Amino acid sequence: MRQNPERRTALLDAAIEVLAREGSRGLTLRAVDAAARVPVGTSSNYFANRGELLRQIMGRTYERLTPDPAELAETMTAPRSPELVALLLRQVHQRMRADRSSYLAMLELRLEGTRRPELGAELNRIFSAELENNIRFHLDAGLPGDRVAVILLYLAMHGMIVDDLTVPDVLAGKAGELTDELCRRLLGNAAPDAS
Amino acid sequence: MRQNPERRTALLDAAIEVLAREGSRGLTLRAVDAAARVPVGTSSNYFANRGELLRQIMGRTYERLTPDPAELAETMTAPRSPELVALLLRQVHQRMRADRSSYLAMLELRLEGTRRPELGAELNRIFSAELENNIRFHLDAGLPGDRVAVILLYLAMHGMIVDDLTVPDVLAGKAGELTDELCRRLLGNAAPDAS
Repeated sequence: MRQNPERRTALLDAAIEVLAREGSRGLTLRAVDAAARVPVGTSSNYFANRGELLRQIMGRTYERLTPDPAELAETMTAPRSPELVALLLRQVHQRMRADRSSYLAMLELRLEGTRRPELGAELNRIFSAELENNIRFHLDAGLPGDRVAVILLYLAMHGMIVDDLTVPDVLAGKAGELTDELCRRLLGNAAPDAS
Repeated sequence: MRQNPERRTALLDAAIEVLAREGSRGLTLRAVDAAARVPVGTSSNYFANRGELLRQIMGRTYERLTPDPAELAETMTAPRSPELVALLLRQVHQRMRADRSSYLAMLELRLEGTRRPELGAELNRIFSAELENNIRFHLDAGLPGDRVAVILLYLAMHGMIVDDLTVPDVLAGKAGELTDELCRRLLGNAAPDAS
């Protein structure tokens, strides 16, 4: 059976919608075929089993949530300051909002990972590497704040995005202001850390 | 059909285990009967439907995660300081760890709430009220930090607990230290706010 990359991506995008809409128990290869409007059996030609599908979905959500390099380069022309960090975090949040399905699918995968040790191990590896990437980017770019500050920013933004996607009334439209306050308070007196 | 409160609580505890273990799609009244080892049909005598069961589970998770009043009173005899706030937050985290099922069940409910508007509205109401309670407790107790600080602490702890329960390697046992740093950095120069 020949495979093509566009078809694979379309199947993964359909799987993300199924996960976000139905939850992880609703995610079967058959449900993906239906959501992608392809003949029954197509997904099983691309993914050996459900575990392999789950693994590839994770990679696809990262692709979808990655910033446009040109836009990021443009943002990074600004002077290094707590305000610039706040702008970068607002942009992360904006991407999540613009692609709710990807973030909800990631939350479903996290919960599924607590039940499937192999997926759990893979997620631990991916999320740990991603946090290290964020820390490296922050420090290499000379942004204010040390390693611990970046981790604290990551945790607060993660909590904020989970609330914003699942119980949006709690922050009642204040997410942007809270992001600014977070950076002002955590980074206000911080120098860049070259460690 | 007579109902008794102990039986109701036992059914809700069984439902929390089903949610944590199987995810929200696995939660049926029949699955709760099985998990609670009671005759088929028992749960439907206590909960008019699955929606009513979901609503009552939320209340039960809060009961289970509420601190022991005597222990809290004992903690609150200490002088007001960032260290005391860190101790309180560590205790919250400890309760979540000691009752993983309740927190995982709450995450499942949050995701289910994105698919069921009625449940979503209820969760928005409950989580908003809970955050207001936390803010009120903090300010009334004369702990350091204003309203915004309490919200930022809540967001970071929420992100930390989600990571700790779903991808524990990311923080690699540093959650306690990070909680201390969070309080030191956010509250280090803060006076109590009587507003």
